[in-house]
This record gives sequence, C-alpha cells and structure tokens, in this order.
Amino acid sequence: MTTRITRIAVHDLRFPTSKSLAGSDAMNAAPDYSATYVVLHTDSPDDLQGHGLTFTIGRGNEICVKAAESLSGLVKGLTLEEITADMGAFWRRLTAGDSQLRWLGPEKGVIHLATAAIVNAVWDLWAKSAGKPVWKLLVDMTPEELVRCLDFSYVTDVLTPEEAIALLRKQSPGKARREAEMLDQGFPGYTTAPGWLGYSEEKMRRLAREAVAAGWSHVKQKVGADLEEDMRRARILREEIGWERSLMMDANQVWDVDQAIEAMRRLAVFEPMWIEEPTSPDDILGHARIRERISPIGVATGEHCHNRVMFKQMFQARAFDFCQLDAARLGGLNEVLIVLLMAAKFGVPVCPHGGGVGLCEYTQHISLFDYIAVAGSLENRVLEYVDHLHEHFIDPVIIRHGRYMPPSLPGYSAEMKRDTLSRYQYPDGPVWSDIEAG
Amino acid sequence: MTTRITRIAVHDLRFPTSKSLAGSDAMNAAPDYSATYVVLHTDSPDDLQGHGLTFTIGRGNEICVKAAESLSGLVKGLTLEEITADMGAFWRRLTAGDSQLRWLGPEKGVIHLATAAIVNAVWDLWAKSAGKPVWKLLVDMTPEELVRCLDFSYVTDVLTPEEAIALLRKQSPGKARREAEMLDQGFPGYTTAPGWLGYSEEKMRRLAREAVAAGWSHVKQKVGADLEEDMRRARILREEIGWERSLMMDANQVWDVDQAIEAMRRLAVFEPMWIEEPTSPDDILGHARIRERISPIGVATGEHCHNRVMFKQMFQARAFDFCQLDAARLGGLNEVLIVLLMAAKFGVPVCPHGGGVGLCEYTQHISLFDYIAVAGSLENRVLEYVDHLHEHFIDPVIIRHGRYMPPSLPGYSAEMKRDTLSRYQYPDGPVWSDIEAG
Repeated sequence: MTTRITRIAVHDLRFPTSKSLAGSDAMNAAPDYSATYVVLHTDSPDDLQGHGLTFTIGRGNEICVKAAESLSGLVKGLTLEEITADMGAFWRRLTAGDSQLRWLGPEKGVIHLATAAIVNAVWDLWAKSAGKPVWKLLVDMTPEELVRCLDFSYVTDVLTPEEAIALLRKQSPGKARREAEMLDQGFPGYTTAPGWLGYSEEKMRRLAREAVAAGWSHVKQKVGADLEEDMRRARILREEIGWERSLMMDANQVWDVDQAIEAMRRLAVFEPMWIEEPTSPDDILGHARIRERISPIGVATGEHCHNRVMFKQMFQARAFDFCQLDAARLGGLNEVLIVLLMAAKFGVPVCPHGGGVGLCEYTQHISLFDYIAVAGSLENRVLEYVDHLHEHFIDPVIIRHGRYMPPSLPGYSAEMKRDTLSRYQYPDGPVWSDIEAG
Repeated sequence: MTTRITRIAVHDLRFPTSKSLAGSDAMNAAPDYSATYVVLHTDSPDDLQGHGLTFTIGRGNEICVKAAESLSGLVKGLTLEEITADMGAFWRRLTAGDSQLRWLGPEKGVIHLATAAIVNAVWDLWAKSAGKPVWKLLVDMTPEELVRCLDFSYVTDVLTPEEAIALLRKQSPGKARREAEMLDQGFPGYTTAPGWLGYSEEKMRRLAREAVAAGWSHVKQKVGADLEEDMRRARILREEIGWERSLMMDANQVWDVDQAIEAMRRLAVFEPMWIEEPTSPDDILGHARIRERISPIGVATGEHCHNRVMFKQMFQARAFDFCQLDAARLGGLNEVLIVLLMAAKFGVPVCPHGGGVGLCEYTQHISLFDYIAVAGSLENRVLEYVDHLHEHFIDPVIIRHGRYMPPSLPGYSAEMKRDTLSRYQYPDGPVWSDIEAG
C-alpha cells in the first residue's frame, strides 16, 4: 500500500499587513506577509495531503510560485515510501538533481525558497501519514534513521554522518525526560510585539506592559533606522520591562560593519542580550569582527543565511552567539537538521527566526526536537514569537505564560484553513480584489 | 533632450546546446545555454534601445524572466539622464529600494540574476547614447565619475569611495599607453574548446591541435566526474599542448573540501595553473583551506560568487588566486566594478568567467577596462573564451591569435540579432517547436 503524489498545487497567498505596520523594521518598512504555499495531493483513499510553505513579504511572491511550479516536476509521481526510504537522496535530487535549475542558485534565493515549500510539504505528508506531529516523528527516529534523511555534501569537513550519529546517541539517554518536560512546561519564547518600528510611545508602553503581564521574560526591539530614536525607544522598553528581563535588538541588515560597531557601543547602555542582523547576512567575517568588538553583547543572525555551507562557516569563524536559522530560507527541514547538528557540535544555541506567516508554526517543531534530541539544553535558547496571522492555521501555536506548548496534531502545523486559501489568494481572492477596488 | 525608458520587454531565449555536449561538465551534464534577455525601449527619435542579458542553462530561465518582469516596474518611466546622474543610487534602488523584492535574495539567486540583465541593458543604452563601447565609456570617466556609479554598502570596511578614487588615480598616468596597446594587440585569452567532458580522445586531440595552431597559450580541462578519467584526459592534453603552455582545470563544484585536496594532489603531476570551483561557491573558508593545502596550484572561483559581500570575504580570507567574476551573476556592471577595485586593492588578478551565451561579449569590456584603468597589469590575467553561439550577436567578439580584440561598436556588445530573438524564443520559437515536434 503506497501513497503517490499525484498533483501539486501552488498558491500565491498574501496578507495585507503593511496596513498596520506590524512587521515594520528598518529594512522592511511595509511588508505584506506572504506565502508560496504548496499542496501535495495524493492517491490515498483518505485524501492525505502534504501542506508546506515558504515565507516572503509581498511583491515577488509570484516568482517563488513560478519556481515551486518548475520544481514540482521533480516530485510529481513519486511515492511517499520511496521518498522516505532515502530522504537524503530525495533532498539532493531536488537541490542538485536538475543541474539546469540548480544553476539559478545554487541553493540560494528564489529556487531554494521554493525548495523549502516543497520539502516542508513532504514532511507534513510524512508526519500525517505516521499520525504524529513532525517534532515527535523526529524524536522517535533512531540516530541512523535521522541521519539517513540528511545530505552532508559540502559539510563533511566539519560534520560526517558518523559524527552526527555520535552526537545524537550522546543525547539519547535524556530524551524521554526532556520530552515529558516539554509536554508539561513548553519551550521558552520571546516576543517582538512592543518593538516594531512605527508604533507610538503609548502603543509601545501598552504592548510592553501586556507582554510582561503575559509572562514574557524576553522582548525584542527593532533598531537601525535612527540611532537617537533607537535610544529613546530602548529607554521606554527598559522602563516597562525592567532590567531583570532580557531586551534584544534587531537591525535587519541596515548597517555596514563599522557602523554596526559604533551603533552598538552606544546602545550598550541598555544591555541588550543580542544584536540581530547587524549587517549583510552574507558577511560571515564581518559578523565575526562585530562580535569581537561589541562583546559582551551577543551577535545573532541566520534568518537570511541561505544554506548549510554558510552556516558551516558562521560556526567555523565563531561569527555569532545565536543561530537564528529559518525554517523556509534553508531548503526545508532536512537542511535545518544539518544545521542543528553543526550547532550542537560547535556549542552555539539555536533560536529560530519566527517573524513571518507560518514560521512560528514550523519553528516550534524544530526547537522541541533540538532540545529533546540534539542540544539537550535550554541555556540561551528562546524561540521567537510574533503574534499575528495565527488565526489562519488549522493547528496554530499555543503559547502559555511565554512558552510554546508542543503541538499534538499530526503534521508540520503550517496547514492553513480552506477559507484562507481562497480569501487571501493573490491577486484574485476577495481580500485583494476589495483592496484593488478601494 | 532626454531619453525615457517607455517599455521593457523580457525574452526567454534558449539554445539547444545539450545536443552537442559543448558546455558539458561534471556538475552540468547537459545544459541548454539560455538567456533572460531584456530590451529597454525608449522614446528617442532614433529608436535607441538598451539590450542586456543574464545567463542560465535552460530550465528555470522562465523564473528569471518572471523576476525581470517584476523588477522592470522600478525602471520603466525613468530617463537615461536621471539614471546616469547618480548610477550608484539607481543601482541601490534596484537592489534595495523595493524591500519586498529584496527579501527574495537579498542580492543573490534569481532576483540578482534578473537585476543583472536590467542593469547591463542600462549600460548598453548609456554607451549607445554616448556613441562608445562600454569599455571606452568607462575608460574615459574621471575617477570621481566612475565612483559615482557605485554602491559601497556592505564593503566600506575594506573599500571606501575615497580609496577607490585613489586606486583609479594611481593608474591614470598609463591609461593612454595601455589603451593603445590593447587596440593594437588585444587582451590575452584562453580556450576551453578541447576540454569539455564527453568528447572522444580523437576529438580532444583534434581540438587541442587546432587550439595550439590558433595561437592559444592556455587551455582548460573539465574534471571532477571520475579521477582516473581526469588523469587520462590531462595526459592527452599535455601531450598535445606541451608543457610550455598552461593547462587549467575546472571541477564545477563537485567536491567536498577534503575530496578537492586529495584529487588535486594526484592531478598535480600535470602542473595545472589553477583548479577552478573545487567546491561549493559559498565556501569561502573551504577555498582558503584548499588553497593552503594544494599550493603551488592556484585556486580560482567566482562565476557563482553572488555579490560584492562574498567577494569581499574571498579577498579578506585570501581564499583564491584568480577572481573569476561573472558579468551577469553579480548585479550587473556596477557591482562588477566594485569587485575589480577590491581585487586591485588586494592584488588578486581578475579572470572573468566566459562559459555561457553572451558572457564573452561582456567580459572583454570588463577586462579591457580593468587592465587600462584599474589593475594596470596583464600578469596572470587570461580571459576565458568559449567558441559557440557568437553567431547570434550583432557585434560578436573578435579573437586574433588567442587574444580578444577590443570591440568598437557603441554599447555592451550583447545585442542579439533580430532573427535569433524570434527563432530561439522559448517555447514558441521555430527552433523549439521543431524540437517539440521531433
């Protein structure tokens, strides 16, 4: 009895978030949170489907949609069983098997974003077929089974399959205890709600108070548009959250290396736990230099770090203190898992990026698995939480007192409601035709 | 009197090169050399147009076309005069001005390839309007005028506008002499003609003899599919070209770091001048390690190095001996110029990538300008020449005795014949409908 992928539908979904300035930062003034959304239809008698997405911020989502359509020929007609028998080979086939498509990256930009949507949909399908949430599917694998899902090309100089198995084995003894702990207490999160640019002082104070009341111990602020303004807003946030809670800052890539160092020397008085994306996401050596110069403020980056080769070098160069991988910027869960393993080897905590539609739904699985089976520690781990658009998901994240509670429904949690798929379809869905009509 | 860009047409052009195995290497077994081809139409009374392209190898070219169409909204309606008054600002507007599109890179992959096609078309338009070939337009600029064309964001820690001006001024005295030298003797090239994978021994020997007879002093061989086979083919080539000529090798990214070191230790007996793309193009630190371990064989890479930030780190990490920038993988000529300036500062010779349709037409301008105004030296500089598809261009490259002769027609030389634009249009042009029909 096999499950064959018979048809792949790709949706262009966009949410008009630019109207509220939620999601506004120094680089991205007015994003419309969007998804290239893939549905794998199958021949299963109970209509099993795999849903997956990649995140963009509006214009250009149509290019990712086109790329996902071009890639889908590599997946259509395969059975779930042949994919999961050697998921590493499947991933390699998708990223390197068609050298003409590979040329467009390789493994970066639009083609890799589109790869993520498809790969994540395959994991959703697998987990649903297994009747488990993805984090649990992963936790229940043996080290050998897990490593078989991975493609180690270009990283064997720092991590071999044998080392990966050894890392996983080392954490095996505590897995059951940590799983029980997570089910009971959840995974610690942090919120960006009060920290977006473009909010009035009154709104910032209100949201900061609400965050404290809701139990958040970590709050993040956007910086980088104007340094005096950043200082003023940091002062407000410190007044509201106090000094016993942690304040993080996020510059969204607006600075050059020396500018970042200067800005953070002034912002240091507010004792930020980290500065996120201080400069170009490609600048491994630049991040290493910034880190050296602004210690003890940590350096965090990764949401735009496009593949395992870039992360490998971030680790090798000791370029960051917090690894903020993205569930859909990397080529889906397989590549995320490689990065988790390298992070464990180098002792760098992983705090995945959550600012986007569907990303929190994904990252909870990643951080749960990381804690239970790979890192085995919560030290310096906090999982970003962004509070909008969760209402569109069938199985949205559940936050209790600032912690993510483990999802229990089968799948990878990013399946959207049928109504959302039609209403937010761009450009023809009613939400957009209404905007068009003014 | 202004020239306004009134309409932007984007063509999907593909050439069925996979039939001949010309262009076949260890990573790219059967490429169909393709171009996302942009035409900027203007309101000029004499029908001035700007033509520009980016190179892909077949499937997926439709995604680049889509991206170029999405970007063209940022260019339509501008005048050539407002663009050239501050070309640095124009470039920044195209790469960072629309943050929603920027998200898809930033500055990498499909969106950056599409940027290159548009930017290169603007340079073609500018040069045609000025009545000069692009290399001469650049050579005739003052250092200040040239630097105004550039966006230094993310590289100011290694190169400021002031340093760039100083670098250019240093070479000013010899410019006229070097220009005359180039017009007389041309720029030295090398050929890959005998070295593609998939050729019989007889064909290799014949092409190698032809190369020697045609005056080529440097010949490149593809490697990486099978080491014994690479050894056998290198032996054949050395037999034909002798030891007084240079042999280069190109692995097209197929090896991991340690594999590359091992393979090159064996291939060292053939005394290759360089190994090109030994591993992932993103692996700056990996290239540095390979370079350290296989000296005196040089390391060459850059055709997939996606932006100035990556090149900056290649220079900082002393990761390569030859900088093989690509005229259309970087975001067009503006970003190429920044890399030329950094290369001059770090003393790394630039040998641009030519393996693709239209790339030789572009790179001759780059290397001529580099020699005349930036580097001022020919030492270790050779410009790749690939011998197919030139018949499609209005102003194809002219090779004399293994050297590129400077183009004299106004523009950037990548304008294709009208007949080619219709015949090779994918999928509807007659060349493709004939193939479709079998």
